[in-house]
Amino acid sequence: MSLTTALNWRYATKRVNGIKIPKSKLDTILNAISLAPSSFGLQPYSVLVIEDKALLEKIKPIAMMQPQITEASALVVFAAWDKVTQDRIDMYFDQIVRDRKVPMQSLEPVRKAIESLLSYSDTDNLSWSARQAYIALGIGLVAAAEAEIDSTPMEGFDKNGLDDLLQLNALGLKSEVLLTLGYRDAKNDFLVNLKKVRREKGKLFIKR
Amino acid sequence: MSLTTALNWRYATKRVNGIKIPKSKLDTILNAISLAPSSFGLQPYSVLVIEDKALLEKIKPIAMMQPQITEASALVVFAAWDKVTQDRIDMYFDQIVRDRKVPMQSLEPVRKAIESLLSYSDTDNLSWSARQAYIALGIGLVAAAEAEIDSTPMEGFDKNGLDDLLQLNALGLKSEVLLTLGYRDAKNDFLVNLKKVRREKGKLFIKR
Repeated sequence: MSLTTALNWRYATKRVNGIKIPKSKLDTILNAISLAPSSFGLQPYSVLVIEDKALLEKIKPIAMMQPQITEASALVVFAAWDKVTQDRIDMYFDQIVRDRKVPMQSLEPVRKAIESLLSYSDTDNLSWSARQAYIALGIGLVAAAEAEIDSTPMEGFDKNGLDDLLQLNALGLKSEVLLTLGYRDAKNDFLVNLKKVRREKGKLFIKR
Repeated sequence: MSLTTALNWRYATKRVNGIKIPKSKLDTILNAISLAPSSFGLQPYSVLVIEDKALLEKIKPIAMMQPQITEASALVVFAAWDKVTQDRIDMYFDQIVRDRKVPMQSLEPVRKAIESLLSYSDTDNLSWSARQAYIALGIGLVAAAEAEIDSTPMEGFDKNGLDDLLQLNALGLKSEVLLTLGYRDAKNDFLVNLKKVRREKGKLFIKR
């Protein structure tokens, strides 16, 4: 499906039919998420992929009993770093050195720029990390639609409750936004045939 | 280009060759941005599209003299609502009524949910609005890559300075992130041939 077709086809699916999506399509979507760009390339988040039905049943009440949670083939949780730490930055530079086969010393100017993040408050760090995760969310959404997989981005959940259930604090992570993956249950979804509402382009865009 | 190919092809282009991109491709990218989903569908942002060279010259020093600003064919500025207001919510509901031809009264439960945003602090409102803009940024990035247009997301600029220059405060907007659009200047870009660095999938993803 072309991007424009895919973006018109997709909608915030409210009911999902419980059928598993092929592993190859899940892998394509996760691969796209892994290729999402982020500020400094730091990817300051982890992405949980939950398919275990018993665990999804426990998440449902934390997410306002939204039926997609348990009807979905997989639930993707974008969890931002709670803070940027020296360890996390060091791991990133170790990887650059490995992947690009460049001497660590040559990366010092970039490292200095990135280490400026260490002086931010935890709140600002988390806010910045979460934004990067939303880029990955946007790309994951597109990847799902192009693979004809329905997805629903969801902010309506108790973040602390989910962090506790998934023991994210111990990993230095905070859940920020969810994406369910599955197939629409068109018969039971009131939203499927409603016209997409988007601000008129003349109002959304300001040309200069 | 397929999504996976496009995401591997794209990179944070540091030098752009100054050639204009076709209007049809710019329109495709903007159309994708306009179709980006957002929480409640509220699209709490505007998107400035700047092609005026004199204005781009004024923006360059506000954006750390990064050469892409003036070398690009267009600069896209994602500007979040400074706060969610009753007026903005009302405009959205007027549009739903127009587009879906439903009675306003039927929307009351959704309206109540959305109006909960009015009790957030300005800081929380802006942080939430900015995240929605980052979804649109992610989708814009993909749209550009699939159209074989190079793009660079940029956070390295003086937000207050840009808001002043573009008089965004008067519009109730705050610049959050930039996206340049153009063609890579491969000869002068040190980054073009460097391997893309991404966290190993076994570390980025946590399967449950």
